[in-house]
Amino acid sequence: MKKVVLAYSGGLDTSYCLKYLSEEKGLEVYTALANTGGFSAAELAEIEKKAYELGAKKHVAIDVTGEYYDKCIKYMVFGNILRNKTYPISVSSERAFQALAIIRYAKEIGAEYVAHGSTGAGNDQVRFDLCFSVFVPGITILTPTRDLQLSREDEIAYLRSKGIQRDWSKMAYSINKGIWGTSVGGRETLTPDQNLPEDAYPTPLQREGSEEITLSFERGELTRVNGETADTPVALISRLEAIASPWAIGRDTHVGDTIIGIKGRVGFEAAAPLLIIKAHELLEKHTLAKWQIYWKEQLGNWYGMFLHEAMHAEPVMRDIERFLEHSQRNVTGDARVLLRPYHFDLLGIRSDHDLMNTGFARYGESNMAWSADDVKGFTKILSIPLRVYNAVNGEES
Amino acid sequence: MKKVVLAYSGGLDTSYCLKYLSEEKGLEVYTALANTGGFSAAELAEIEKKAYELGAKKHVAIDVTGEYYDKCIKYMVFGNILRNKTYPISVSSERAFQALAIIRYAKEIGAEYVAHGSTGAGNDQVRFDLCFSVFVPGITILTPTRDLQLSREDEIAYLRSKGIQRDWSKMAYSINKGIWGTSVGGRETLTPDQNLPEDAYPTPLQREGSEEITLSFERGELTRVNGETADTPVALISRLEAIASPWAIGRDTHVGDTIIGIKGRVGFEAAAPLLIIKAHELLEKHTLAKWQIYWKEQLGNWYGMFLHEAMHAEPVMRDIERFLEHSQRNVTGDARVLLRPYHFDLLGIRSDHDLMNTGFARYGESNMAWSADDVKGFTKILSIPLRVYNAVNGEES
Amino acid sequence: MKKVVLAYSGGLDTSYCLKYLSEEKGLEVYTALANTGGFSAAELAEIEKKAYELGAKKHVAIDVTGEYYDKCIKYMVFGNILRNKTYPISVSSERAFQALAIIRYAKEIGAEYVAHGSTGAGNDQVRFDLCFSVFVPGITILTPTRDLQLSREDEIAYLRSKGIQRDWSKMAYSINKGIWGTSVGGRETLTPDQNLPEDAYPTPLQREGSEEITLSFERGELTRVNGETADTPVALISRLEAIASPWAIGRDTHVGDTIIGIKGRVGFEAAAPLLIIKAHELLEKHTLAKWQIYWKEQLGNWYGMFLHEAMHAEPVMRDIERFLEHSQRNVTGDARVLLRPYHFDLLGIRSDHDLMNTGFARYGESNMAWSADDVKGFTKILSIPLRVYNAVNGEES
Amino acid sequence: MKKVVLAYSGGLDTSYCLKYLSEEKGLEVYTALANTGGFSAAELAEIEKKAYELGAKKHVAIDVTGEYYDKCIKYMVFGNILRNKTYPISVSSERAFQALAIIRYAKEIGAEYVAHGSTGAGNDQVRFDLCFSVFVPGITILTPTRDLQLSREDEIAYLRSKGIQRDWSKMAYSINKGIWGTSVGGRETLTPDQNLPEDAYPTPLQREGSEEITLSFERGELTRVNGETADTPVALISRLEAIASPWAIGRDTHVGDTIIGIKGRVGFEAAAPLLIIKAHELLEKHTLAKWQIYWKEQLGNWYGMFLHEAMHAEPVMRDIERFLEHSQRNVTGDARVLLRPYHFDLLGIRSDHDLMNTGFARYGESNMAWSADDVKGFTKILSIPLRVYNAVNGEES
Repeated sequence: MKKVVLAYSGGLDTSYCLKYLSEEKGLEVYTALANTGGFSAAELAEIEKKAYELGAKKHVAIDVTGEYYDKCIKYMVFGNILRNKTYPISVSSERAFQALAIIRYAKEIGAEYVAHGSTGAGNDQVRFDLCFSVFVPGITILTPTRDLQLSREDEIAYLRSKGIQRDWSKMAYSINKGIWGTSVGGRETLTPDQNLPEDAYPTPLQREGSEEITLSFERGELTRVNGETADTPVALISRLEAIASPWAIGRDTHVGDTIIGIKGRVGFEAAAPLLIIKAHELLEKHTLAKWQIYWKEQLGNWYGMFLHEAMHAEPVMRDIERFLEHSQRNVTGDARVLLRPYHFDLLGIRSDHDLMNTGFARYGESNMAWSADDVKGFTKILSIPLRVYNAVNGEES
Repeated sequence: MKKVVLAYSGGLDTSYCLKYLSEEKGLEVYTALANTGGFSAAELAEIEKKAYELGAKKHVAIDVTGEYYDKCIKYMVFGNILRNKTYPISVSSERAFQALAIIRYAKEIGAEYVAHGSTGAGNDQVRFDLCFSVFVPGITILTPTRDLQLSREDEIAYLRSKGIQRDWSKMAYSINKGIWGTSVGGRETLTPDQNLPEDAYPTPLQREGSEEITLSFERGELTRVNGETADTPVALISRLEAIASPWAIGRDTHVGDTIIGIKGRVGFEAAAPLLIIKAHELLEKHTLAKWQIYWKEQLGNWYGMFLHEAMHAEPVMRDIERFLEHSQRNVTGDARVLLRPYHFDLLGIRSDHDLMNTGFARYGESNMAWSADDVKGFTKILSIPLRVYNAVNGEES
Repeated sequence: MKKVVLAYSGGLDTSYCLKYLSEEKGLEVYTALANTGGFSAAELAEIEKKAYELGAKKHVAIDVTGEYYDKCIKYMVFGNILRNKTYPISVSSERAFQALAIIRYAKEIGAEYVAHGSTGAGNDQVRFDLCFSVFVPGITILTPTRDLQLSREDEIAYLRSKGIQRDWSKMAYSINKGIWGTSVGGRETLTPDQNLPEDAYPTPLQREGSEEITLSFERGELTRVNGETADTPVALISRLEAIASPWAIGRDTHVGDTIIGIKGRVGFEAAAPLLIIKAHELLEKHTLAKWQIYWKEQLGNWYGMFLHEAMHAEPVMRDIERFLEHSQRNVTGDARVLLRPYHFDLLGIRSDHDLMNTGFARYGESNMAWSADDVKGFTKILSIPLRVYNAVNGEES
Repeated sequence: MKKVVLAYSGGLDTSYCLKYLSEEKGLEVYTALANTGGFSAAELAEIEKKAYELGAKKHVAIDVTGEYYDKCIKYMVFGNILRNKTYPISVSSERAFQALAIIRYAKEIGAEYVAHGSTGAGNDQVRFDLCFSVFVPGITILTPTRDLQLSREDEIAYLRSKGIQRDWSKMAYSINKGIWGTSVGGRETLTPDQNLPEDAYPTPLQREGSEEITLSFERGELTRVNGETADTPVALISRLEAIASPWAIGRDTHVGDTIIGIKGRVGFEAAAPLLIIKAHELLEKHTLAKWQIYWKEQLGNWYGMFLHEAMHAEPVMRDIERFLEHSQRNVTGDARVLLRPYHFDLLGIRSDHDLMNTGFARYGESNMAWSADDVKGFTKILSIPLRVYNAVNGEES
């Protein structure tokens, strides 16, 4: 009996795939859930139970959160990556690591197929297919939902015919959760002019007034929240999320180009990612030289675009990571942030590497590192190309 | 008697310069205030009165706001320009147009000198000197405050010795106002970790709850606020500022590299600029193609840096303006914004040019503009370079 | 009877398509040759004759060379575009204009289909398909050669079975000629380490010694060769090609990424394009400011990549064209070039807009536009960020 | 007696400085020649002798060629750096390493001053001053030639008055030699339209016919010439130069912006650098992925500009070096080059990492890694944004 590893989440699409692949295709279905921090232990147990009920030969939950942090989140922070200046690429950046986990598991058990439940409309099919075909070129990818062009009703009817009776009633909002944020799609995000209502966000506003917190970074990585470390970077992000999300911050709506080429719109909630990125970025404004900031922005922007577009495996990504990593050698210090309902303010930073923090320009004119004449000379030289240009071509302004 | 045109604002530095140049240097001092929207009629009258009291031969107030809009603000909106992702370059972008007005006036009256009151510590000396030396290469620039390295006390003592008794007591915060925002410097902005207190901002919070407004753009320019036009683009910005600033929005602290090369920090209040830029940017996310957004970001970023660094006259700026202008051909539509105390939310846009607004991907699978097989083919081809790379070099991830 | 417009060149693939579409598919085949300067009048007449022999309902030769110049070549010169620093994009850039001509003709005669003879292995299928599907979304594209996966032998056998007896013996080298150069593929270009032999190039070396020529540009466009104008820009390029190609210059081998994602290699001969681009580039080094050169290089590079990759219709291309065009306002003057066998030397330029051509720095120290102290001041200020950085972080070098 | 370290080359300017600083300023002058590969042992001995004759307290020759290779040349090759697409930055890139050697020596002997002989007209003064002021902020820089605005005649007269009689007759061409090339300035390079005559180049043409050579690279570094290694990378460059320079290749004229802001023009001869860079670049076209080439070009371009403009110490340079270095992980292989009088041809490469060198697209259609349908699907998806754009905005081409 041939083996297939199915990327399984417990939802309708992948439940259908599990049943279909096992019953109709006669495959031994190994379900694998590659967890990037979006599932609690109870949820994982429930999903496992359902997998066996639907006929899984074996179910595994693979925690890839640590790998996702080491190979991706870290660099997204170094690069201050917000897609289209807004979106921390909460969900799309996870897919590569979920696919890699599936691949490793498929190789381990000698599976002949891999399968996923993506439909033909979105980005995820590209992310999974591309990763599979690059890293296991010989393997066949099965995507029954996409290939059969099934509607939700079709899938439910099929499952019911197989004796599977569950409440598949569609949630009003499609939620996708991971350590780096939760995406929320629904009726409003399909329009260009409506925003998600308050209650569509997973975490309701629970706080009032304000609260100051301190985020500490070492060489660009978050190492402390309010002075306290955690066992792992991921645990620290979770703790910060627990502190910040009740303030209902880090919510926004992302509009951008999908891999397929149409414009897409999605809401998200990502309190910790937004706080970390914005605090980190402020610390960089103090500790990096002007042209480091300039080039980091360009390379970070590209890195984010490629992450979003299923291109994590592109060789240039490894080169960019070396640049970003080295740029962090002095990005060490504390950032103070004030949380308020729905938004936060960056208060300031303290760092031994603060380039403002120097005797250079603190004292009076006589002690300054430059004189008025120096600036006059500087300006005169700076103006030379413009003066030449205007002398030759006539005034332009 | 030789003539000098002094860029005059009525403050201590330029008052000193006026007296000094006329009394000690025996020059005929023509004072000129190049207004970029920061002064009311009453303030202008008061400044004129003071100029004559201090011995100006003639005082003129030159309104350059329209020119500043046409040659600069418009492009800053097209480019969504926020320096270091934060600062709308409120004050520094005005300087070139103030200097140009001074130059034209100096040429008109045949002045042999121009003068300004900048000190040797900041950016403005470079902006004025550079503009003067590029556009009137022959002229001599006088900067008594900078050259004599005078303290405020020195200046006050000199003026007193000449019979000028005024209250020069330094304001707690140094305020610089123009149509594109108000900068605020003070004790806190000299530190890396303190923010301006509430009352340092010119406009206090006066509203509560929320208010929805609509900003309408035509080919990238703001043309209506809540459906109403105004006589000039500048008048429309002023009206929006009047609506928005009582919500205490558009406040932030900018940290960045000065022209001189040290890090500088300044607070600002710029409700209308922030609203316009962010609403415009959202409209662009819907109406521009992916690579237009990509290149606009890079060129806009550079344009903002050069504006900030006194380089408005660089020839490449004219080339960038052509790019930016042409990119706006479809940036027409309405953006809805929700104002709340201290922050605002972008609700969405409506535009006939909305690239989401198409039948393409609205209907079910069968009506879609592509099939599952198309995406499979797409992904297969997309994966080719990565598959080749890994086949040749071994796996990399 | 339904109509199809077939992009027809007289070669084996399109001859097969013509016969197949008319006989097997029962279509009325309108053959159209979109000429970009690669065919003589005699060649065009011969192709027309063959089209009718093969059963074309009607044959048209559409000259798109002028449009190709106005919408593409001009900008490739402005952008000094050499793909991978080598290849003037001789052939690939023509395809969009050939496809557009086919489209216009198909609309004119109310055709229900368009057809081309590309195989499934190369770039051209993407260029044609993409252009057709963007500009005539409703039309069906027929590509028998590709769809039936026919070999040359299959095609010849089919044609013979229909009574068509011609010498289809494959030329040793596949040649593709247009006004902007001739590409040459063959056995050697399929290897990574062999170059085309001398006789594979269409134009043999016919000159010895050397010859000096002068290329004159106005606002970036070539307007004179050796002081003489021509009726059209295209005619001037042809004249230059006639002068230069007997020197066997402008030959090279291009290696680069195809649209499909594999590496491709092709030889080419493009004497006039290389001379024009290199002479233009030298003129720009003298007449453009530093940052214009910087940004032109980046935008030109992108423009060339998108041209190569079938993306002429991308909206950002129109924005880039505005930038490039405006940057040419002072690119007027003469360039002297020395032709020798196999290579040419740029001798120098003369231009009223030459930024070297100024009194600024010609005379001795005392007349210079700056003093030693100005440079000292300049350098001191320039060094400030580095001095601050090293003071804060310790020496780095 | 106070100590000064003088950067000494044995030429007129530095000879004057040596005498002047010792006799007029009463300083103990330590002369230091920081050799970057431009001097033979005999030349070094001669310079030392002259230094003592002129009154040097002590003379040292410091070989910085190895350091210059490790910290600079290596990265210029990785980046394929040709300034303005022409100039391998032969001389200007050395200055930082010469200045650093002077600094280390000055610190070692506890000198209170450093001195150099640059005039006020060129780039070198900025390079030396900037490096000195960044790395020994406290030290005083003496530049008598620049400060006293002396002409050559003034200097000669002074030296004669001190009993120094030498043939200072100015060479027709100013020559500056180092391991990475020789720059040549003269009457012609001061014009925009004249080139250096044949005999102005140090190495005359001595060969005819042609010669094939092989350059081997490992991870981007030249490791073998014609299969043979050398003791050091620098020795290998020298050997290649000895093979190639008699062919009179690698000559050209560079036109570009000086640090001061005027346009400058200089001839150069750099056979080995040009061969290495062009061979390396070709090897990269085969072994790097498309976007690696894209980003390397941008970062390399910037790196070269900053090297040229005295900015080697900028922190972003270290980040760029990490990117460039990592990008070389597969740039290993051989390049074949054909030398001919005045020019060379790249014949091809052989590499185990050649991305052309794969079974992927070698075989017939049926064995290809993709099908015609895959490309159709690819093209359809690729066209979606353009089809949406045109559907919404009407045709644009």
